[in-house]
Amino acid sequence: MSDGTVGRPRSIDPEEVSLVALRLFEERGYEAVSMDEVARAARISRRSLFRLFPTKGALVWGGLDGFGHRLAAALDTADPSGATEDAVRSAFRAAATFPPESVEVTRHRLRIIRANPALAAERPRAGIELAGLVAGFIADREGLAPDDLAVQVRGALVGAAASTALFWWSDHSQEAPEVVVDRALRVAARAPE
Amino acid sequence: MSDGTVGRPRSIDPEEVSLVALRLFEERGYEAVSMDEVARAARISRRSLFRLFPTKGALVWGGLDGFGHRLAAALDTADPSGATEDAVRSAFRAAATFPPESVEVTRHRLRIIRANPALAAERPRAGIELAGLVAGFIADREGLAPDDLAVQVRGALVGAAASTALFWWSDHSQEAPEVVVDRALRVAARAPE
Repeated sequence: MSDGTVGRPRSIDPEEVSLVALRLFEERGYEAVSMDEVARAARISRRSLFRLFPTKGALVWGGLDGFGHRLAAALDTADPSGATEDAVRSAFRAAATFPPESVEVTRHRLRIIRANPALAAERPRAGIELAGLVAGFIADREGLAPDDLAVQVRGALVGAAASTALFWWSDHSQEAPEVVVDRALRVAARAPE
Repeated sequence: MSDGTVGRPRSIDPEEVSLVALRLFEERGYEAVSMDEVARAARISRRSLFRLFPTKGALVWGGLDGFGHRLAAALDTADPSGATEDAVRSAFRAAATFPPESVEVTRHRLRIIRANPALAAERPRAGIELAGLVAGFIADREGLAPDDLAVQVRGALVGAAASTALFWWSDHSQEAPEVVVDRALRVAARAPE
């Protein structure tokens, strides 16, 4: 990949660019920082920046996509025996197990999202999609209709517990995020800790 | 209140204006309808429209504010005896008891919000505020810290169950919305139906 400057091709690490951006957002506030400033600070062209991150929000949200991918993969390969709640909790535990080098960056992403409603607004469907994924899993596993009220509610409960846990962790805890998510899902399922 | 047209003062009913708008949004899509068109269809001036509804989203969301007000009032006057879950469920039941003449309008509001992520994005804090209200109630009642993980999660669970129930009701049910909300909160609390 090239940074668009003629005669000076160099490779651009998206992770590094988003780190530069997160630092700027924390120092000066998400709203106050422009994409031009991010490009300058990351020493890449505006065009290269937009190619990697089509929106300012993608610089923050992008790194969280792994959560959904890990969750979907873990649900797909869940142990078919045992209680549904246990299978769901174990899948969320896997999803919340971020690569070690991403744990603290993830904390910063979550804090910036929480501090900026405009950022949450960029992904209005994030929670609904998560809940829908879980509802689909529950329906399949228990032979229920996916649009059954109880199935929909159970999906939403798990999604809400996990997302509350992650934001809580980002502000309150030095434990591993997956430990906090596990604890929250036990509260939701009323399972002993 | 006047519509701003010199020499022709007449009273404007905000409920009626929002009904006109909801009908337009359903017919032609929320994004496709402009505030100018709403004003024309409601036969009021653009200025009067913006005085009543500062944003297009307010035409849809506005009618739902009663839910939060009823919830806060019911939690404030909750029976101090009995299980916390029962007090919370009964407060949500009261909140979801819309005035009879508003029930079907509420259904339309919810359907339009669900169909338009941009509308959900206009109130990114709605769910968080609801969950925070409940978490505060639980913390007070049980003498726990409001930022305790379990308290935060329990608040989020109830909020998610109620909001899932309302959207589900708007698409699936001819029952009273408070009956569906009550059922969803029993799923969340694992209480017998």
